[in-house]
Amino acid sequence: MEFMRITSAANPSIKLAKNLAQHSRAARKEGLSLAEGIHLARELLSHPELVRKVFLREGAEKNFEISEILQKYLSLKISVVQLPSQIYASISPVDTSAGIVCEIRIPEEGKIKKDEDWIYLDGVQDPGNVGTILRSALASGVTNIALSPQCAYVWSPKVLRAAMGAHFFCNIISSVELAEIKEKTGAVCLVADARGGKDLYEEKWGKGQTLWVFGSEGLGVSEKALELSDLTLLIPLDSRVESLNVATAASVCLFEQRRRRLSGIAHK
Amino acid sequence: MEFMRITSAANPSIKLAKNLAQHSRAARKEGLSLAEGIHLARELLSHPELVRKVFLREGAEKNFEISEILQKYLSLKISVVQLPSQIYASISPVDTSAGIVCEIRIPEEGKIKKDEDWIYLDGVQDPGNVGTILRSALASGVTNIALSPQCAYVWSPKVLRAAMGAHFFCNIISSVELAEIKEKTGAVCLVADARGGKDLYEEKWGKGQTLWVFGSEGLGVSEKALELSDLTLLIPLDSRVESLNVATAASVCLFEQRRRRLSGIAHK
Repeated sequence: MEFMRITSAANPSIKLAKNLAQHSRAARKEGLSLAEGIHLARELLSHPELVRKVFLREGAEKNFEISEILQKYLSLKISVVQLPSQIYASISPVDTSAGIVCEIRIPEEGKIKKDEDWIYLDGVQDPGNVGTILRSALASGVTNIALSPQCAYVWSPKVLRAAMGAHFFCNIISSVELAEIKEKTGAVCLVADARGGKDLYEEKWGKGQTLWVFGSEGLGVSEKALELSDLTLLIPLDSRVESLNVATAASVCLFEQRRRRLSGIAHK
Repeated sequence: MEFMRITSAANPSIKLAKNLAQHSRAARKEGLSLAEGIHLARELLSHPELVRKVFLREGAEKNFEISEILQKYLSLKISVVQLPSQIYASISPVDTSAGIVCEIRIPEEGKIKKDEDWIYLDGVQDPGNVGTILRSALASGVTNIALSPQCAYVWSPKVLRAAMGAHFFCNIISSVELAEIKEKTGAVCLVADARGGKDLYEEKWGKGQTLWVFGSEGLGVSEKALELSDLTLLIPLDSRVESLNVATAASVCLFEQRRRRLSGIAHK
């Protein structure tokens, strides 16, 4: 295989990638991001229009899976840029990388669709949590995700990595108010709140399409979200625990919804 | 309040704490660990026998919550050591710390108890995942946790932080084989496997006490665990997703168990 090769940290492509790796604001500003790892590089083969170039750590092409993926990118006329490991390390969004990073165009904002299930993230700030929630949402069958302006930027490299490719199957609106989503979707607004609410398992809910709201790590959902809530739900926890991690709580709620849908129980 | 003060990085207490912060092997070897943050410092007030000393970043005592906690430690005759921020940073197991770290004695290994629910972690290597599973386990009412020798060390600072205090309510065996736990508890061995198994929601299980097994991030459960399995269960995922994060998958299984227990459904 023939690769391009860059050996200077001063090269504009490297400077740009480094900026994207280090500052999540840069991704939003440039409309570009980095997708690290074998899993994402393979997923992106189904979305080649998003891939601007592929960065490769010198030697990583010896990995059989990576080599297979690179051949496909080359046959799609997408350039593969080989980097000495020190330069690769400066553009990798994670410390222990498999040696492959795709630079991608961030797709346009998603659209508000009626008659489908939604999730709204209300100030979830940890990129790992946002990504894990996307992965769990898709796994539970929900593909519409909207986020408040206070959330970690959903297309940042760390969120991409944690979501393991879920982005590419989802309809994502990166910065919007809950009121707008609720009004335009007409979905029942279910708010998960560790401080109190009806029992997730005992309460009847989930008959029509739902709009689940999950709040921030420290503070939970905002007052605004509680005002817009049609039903506030609580996961019944052992009394020795105050709350679950937000990504865990979201997954428990979304899979209770999936259980109800799969078993044909519209409510309860 | 009167604090001890250390200003030299060469002080033996600092060298020890730094070693504990940086190398999870050190925790196992020394029988000591670090519990970072306000939440853990508050939880540990109920277990003062475990706390050897409290490290404080200079100025952090101005935080009202921290100041309250420090007063209680001082009244328990546990020494509070104030550090200049640079030295504090070297002993803090996390980059963004609230400014308080407790150095703790690791309790003795737990005991194998019959007639109770268990969880076995089979090669879960990410400390954040191990900690999140402990937190979810306790939240779901399961307090007995055993780990394979390949897991992240359960008493390491990063696992302590992710578990948010769950350690102090659990019976933990840090390194043991599944065969021994299964034989001595007599519990039904339920193995979660993303590669295949019976449907988590449709299958009847959970009548007697259970021993749930969750596998490693990359490879899932080991062959040995599959051989010991009484029932292999699969979370029914949307076909666009291969698997869930292991901490998420464990939480979904454990809360399905909790749902069945709470609703009095012994099976289904």
